[in-house]
Amino acid sequence: MRNLEKRQIENIVLDWARAVSAGDRDGILARHADDLLMFDFPNTVRGIAAYDKTWDFFYANPRGTITYAPRDLAITAGQDVAFACCEVHCDGTSAGPLDFRLTVGLERRNGEWIITHEHHSMVTTEERFIEQ
Amino acid sequence: MRNLEKRQIENIVLDWARAVSAGDRDGILARHADDLLMFDFPNTVRGIAAYDKTWDFFYANPRGTITYAPRDLAITAGQDVAFACCEVHCDGTSAGPLDFRLTVGLERRNGEWIITHEHHSMVTTEERFIEQ
Repeated sequence: MRNLEKRQIENIVLDWARAVSAGDRDGILARHADDLLMFDFPNTVRGIAAYDKTWDFFYANPRGTITYAPRDLAITAGQDVAFACCEVHCDGTSAGPLDFRLTVGLERRNGEWIITHEHHSMVTTEERFIEQ
Repeated sequence: MRNLEKRQIENIVLDWARAVSAGDRDGILARHADDLLMFDFPNTVRGIAAYDKTWDFFYANPRGTITYAPRDLAITAGQDVAFACCEVHCDGTSAGPLDFRLTVGLERRNGEWIITHEHHSMVTTEERFIEQ
C-alpha cells in the first residue's frame, strides 16, 4: 500500500541526511515547514529559524568528516500524512561518534511533502529507568 | 482539515494516558498494533508482548498515585495515517517525578486507528550536546 508515497518519503529523509553529511545548509532546510516542531536532544525547537540555528552548533568544531547515516528506516505513509522511524549513526562532530533514534513526521501541503516534526533522542543511561 | 480524524486521535491518546494513570493494563494495550515499534527511554522495543512487559517495570515499586498527563498535544491527521506530539508529566513511579517528550504514530487498519509507533525521550543533559 502507498508504495509511491513511501518512496517519496524515503527520498526526502535520505536527501536530508545526505545534506547533513555534506554540510549543505540549504539542502537541510529544503523540505522543512516554517512551523516545524523538533524535540532535539537537549530541548524543544519551534520554527524554521530556530531549527536552522541548531545546525550552527552541530557544525562547530568538527573532529573530522561528518557522517550522518540513517539505518532501519521504517516508513508509514498515507496520502497526505506520513511518519518515518530510524536509527542514525553520526560521527565527525564535536560530540564524537554516536547513535540515536529519530522519528520524522511529514505532511503534504499544496501537493508537496514537508517535514513538520522531528524527534531526536539518545537512549537514557540513568539507572532509575533501567530494569536491574 | 481532518477535524474528525484529529478528534479520534486525541481521544485515543488521552484514553491511553488515562489507562496508564489508572493502571489499566488492558486499556493501555487496547489500541496498539501487534508489530509496534517503540523507542523507549533506554532501548528499542518491538512487538506488543515486549511493549506490555515494559509496563511491569513502570508499575514496580510505585512511590504514590500514578500521574501520566499529556500536555501541548499537537495532532497531524490524514485519512489513514496520523502522528501526535506532546510532553508528558509523569509521577508516582519508582523513577520519581519527570517530564518527557512523546511522539505517537498511528495507522488506520481495517477501519480502526491503531498505534504503531511510540517515541519516548528524556532531554539530554550531557554537556557535549549543549551549546555553552
